[in-house]
Amino acid sequence: MNALGKQLLMELKDCNKEVLNDVDALRNALLAAANEAGATVLGESFHRFNPHGISGVVIIAESHLFIHTWPEYGYAAADIFTCGDTVKPEKAAEILISKLGARHHSIVEMQRGTLGVEQSESA
Amino acid sequence: MNALGKQLLMELKDCNKEVLNDVDALRNALLAAANEAGATVLGESFHRFNPHGISGVVIIAESHLFIHTWPEYGYAAADIFTCGDTVKPEKAAEILISKLGARHHSIVEMQRGTLGVEQSESA
Repeated sequence: MNALGKQLLMELKDCNKEVLNDVDALRNALLAAANEAGATVLGESFHRFNPHGISGVVIIAESHLFIHTWPEYGYAAADIFTCGDTVKPEKAAEILISKLGARHHSIVEMQRGTLGVEQSESA
Repeated sequence: MNALGKQLLMELKDCNKEVLNDVDALRNALLAAANEAGATVLGESFHRFNPHGISGVVIIAESHLFIHTWPEYGYAAADIFTCGDTVKPEKAAEILISKLGARHHSIVEMQRGTLGVEQSESA
C-alpha cells in the first residue's frame, strides 16, 4: 500500500531567536530547503506578527513547506509535505535544522493518502 | 503542559471529484472553513496541476489551512493548524468534510510546541 504524500512534522527547539524573527532569513531557509530537496518552487507567502513571530509557506510543485515561529520560546513548527519520489524531504529537514540553529528537534513522519485497493484505480 | 499550536491532519476520502478539481470551489471551501472557525484570513494561494489535482493554502492570523487534492482517487489531504483559544479548528474540519462531500474521513490531532517548563518563559 503506497502513500500519495509524505509529511514530516518538525518540532524545532532552542533555535537561534534572531533567525526566528527575521522574515528574510526564514524565507531563505525555506527556499534553500526546497531547492536542496529537489523541489520546484511555485510561490511563497510570509507574514510577520506583532510583537514577534512569523508564518511562512512555500508552495512547491510537489506540495508545500511551512513554518510558524515563536521567537520568544526559541521554537518553530515546520512541516514538509511532498508527493512523488523525486523530492527528498529529509534533505529539506536537514537544511531547516541547520539554518535555524535548532539545538534540539524531533520529527514525526506521516503517510498521507494510503488508499485501499478498491480506491486505487489508475488515473 | 500547554501546546502553542494545534493541528488537525485530515484524510478526506470518497469526495466529490468535481469539487476536488475546481479551484473556485476549493477556495470557497477553505475560506468558509476559516471564517466559520473564527479565523482571520491574511492571504491565500492556489495552484492547479496537470492533468488534475490542486494545492491550496489559506494563511490565517492564527496559522494556516492547506489542502492537496487527488481527484482521480476522490482523495484530499487537508491540515488545519491553529494557535490560540479563539479559533475552533473542529468547526473548520466540519465545513471541509461537508463542502468536499467526503463520505469517509479520519482526523489525527497533533499538539505542536509542547514546551517544557524550562522553556516556558513569559514572552
